[in-house]
Amino acid sequence: MTPITKLFNIQYPIIQGGMIWCSGRRLAAAVSNAGGLGLIGSGSMTPDILREHIKKCKNATDKPFGVNIPLLFPHAEEFINIIIEEGVKIVFTSAGNPGKYTSYLKDKGLIVVHVIANVKFAKKAEEAGVDAIVAEGFEAGGHNGREETTTLVLVPLIKQSVTIPVIAAGGIGSGRGMLAAMSLGADGVQIGSRFVCSEESSAHPDFKRKILEAKDGDTMLSLKKLVSVRLLKNKFFFEVEKKEHEGASAEELSEILGRGRARKGMFEGDLDEGELEIGQVSSIINEIKTAKEIVEEIMSEYHFAKNEVSGLNF
Amino acid sequence: MTPITKLFNIQYPIIQGGMIWCSGRRLAAAVSNAGGLGLIGSGSMTPDILREHIKKCKNATDKPFGVNIPLLFPHAEEFINIIIEEGVKIVFTSAGNPGKYTSYLKDKGLIVVHVIANVKFAKKAEEAGVDAIVAEGFEAGGHNGREETTTLVLVPLIKQSVTIPVIAAGGIGSGRGMLAAMSLGADGVQIGSRFVCSEESSAHPDFKRKILEAKDGDTMLSLKKLVSVRLLKNKFFFEVEKKEHEGASAEELSEILGRGRARKGMFEGDLDEGELEIGQVSSIINEIKTAKEIVEEIMSEYHFAKNEVSGLNF
Repeated sequence: MTPITKLFNIQYPIIQGGMIWCSGRRLAAAVSNAGGLGLIGSGSMTPDILREHIKKCKNATDKPFGVNIPLLFPHAEEFINIIIEEGVKIVFTSAGNPGKYTSYLKDKGLIVVHVIANVKFAKKAEEAGVDAIVAEGFEAGGHNGREETTTLVLVPLIKQSVTIPVIAAGGIGSGRGMLAAMSLGADGVQIGSRFVCSEESSAHPDFKRKILEAKDGDTMLSLKKLVSVRLLKNKFFFEVEKKEHEGASAEELSEILGRGRARKGMFEGDLDEGELEIGQVSSIINEIKTAKEIVEEIMSEYHFAKNEVSGLNF
Repeated sequence: MTPITKLFNIQYPIIQGGMIWCSGRRLAAAVSNAGGLGLIGSGSMTPDILREHIKKCKNATDKPFGVNIPLLFPHAEEFINIIIEEGVKIVFTSAGNPGKYTSYLKDKGLIVVHVIANVKFAKKAEEAGVDAIVAEGFEAGGHNGREETTTLVLVPLIKQSVTIPVIAAGGIGSGRGMLAAMSLGADGVQIGSRFVCSEESSAHPDFKRKILEAKDGDTMLSLKKLVSVRLLKNKFFFEVEKKEHEGASAEELSEILGRGRARKGMFEGDLDEGELEIGQVSSIINEIKTAKEIVEEIMSEYHFAKNEVSGLNF
């Protein structure tokens, strides 16, 4: 048992990150059934769709699962009421102020975890009363901290800054990555990109295939003047890069971005014009598997690497 | 024994990174005497000064030590002849094409290690016949790869791309960081920033003090249009950032940079106008110690964390 397996009552300290357009109830239920913690990513849903996903997830697993809510999204408050009404027991909040809803959620009996990328927000989240923190490094896909602190540096720093359990995220997609995170003092790991390339993820098949082909250097932080986001390089990425290189303002970038780019890329499979959010760890992902196979593979590599490191004597 | 302790005939698989203005013969000898491998950083030296440092290092330790040579520097060829004349047995090459001098150095009986930041150059270095590779991630101080791949992602990727030993670098400054690197499959670690804050480093005392104060987010990649370099934020950094934000060209940035900025900052202690090269791991460095104390502290934390991880059962 680790503080994280105990907190969520799960077998392995593996949390599947809540991701827009990729992690609906199918993926969440599959990860929970495999012994991890599945999260429904609400960021790309309407209130009705979120409710439907929660209902179906409850039917698909008797294991604990949770919902991720980006607090800055327009529907955040409505989403919070829905998860309470539907009896969801675990919520991961991100992209916003942890002080806003944490005590309300705690009063309703939920386990609350907040995602941070720096020491300041880790302390803020602890003060707000969350049960655990996700410390997410620079290599993670999607939205990303301004400090650009990598997981290797961030995790020990956050561990020494707070007393609540810390879940490492960013750059972890294998058993070795998980063992590295636990070595840094993490109490568990959150894995996103690896689960995008699962059978059960709702990512478009063409997006999944593009991830399998990704090499090192094929993702990069983009749109830093708006809100940093790690994207797979494609036509849209290079357009933005060119404009950024020329010193485009936040307003100009916002206009280029427009609306619906993430849906277009990740859900509809428009590999040229869409936003393709994925982490650096895409460079080591080579196969689409079921969520269960992914969890088993991670745990098996974790134990193999742990034995290997145990055998080193110096 | 690991492939790295065997290759260099050292006690611990800890290599002190060769760093301009910070790692002369005092630091190199101290690290080698402590059971690691010390490297003289030649990048900020003239040929005469390098020869003097090598001679004095030989007098200060009977343990193996090496020299780091950035291949793109004007004196590179002269440096290579000096290390051969002086009987140095180990050379780390960086910042350049490993195909250029490796076979010449191998013919002279040297152990050759090349520093890379991507798969392409790792394979190139292996083909050139180097004995080992340093895989250096985005979080490292100083010059840095364009791909921005972090150590957590880079190390497993390089391990699966080559068959020679791999030394992990970037973001490692503690025993936990070292254990994380070994978990990823690294055969050893290269540590730079932590040794900048040693008694024996030739960094200016004011620079060392500024590193102790550094928090997360206080270093950032700069001058990406010229050659990416991770700097501690100061007056000079913000000047460059402002110009970059406005879309300044490589030529304009080169003019702002001028000459001698690194010496001014790191060696002369001009904290406003100088370049201050240091890694993200500066955020967890809180004390100046001797190189011996640093090595001992790292090894002690390594074993503590290894036992802790061994005790986790899930």
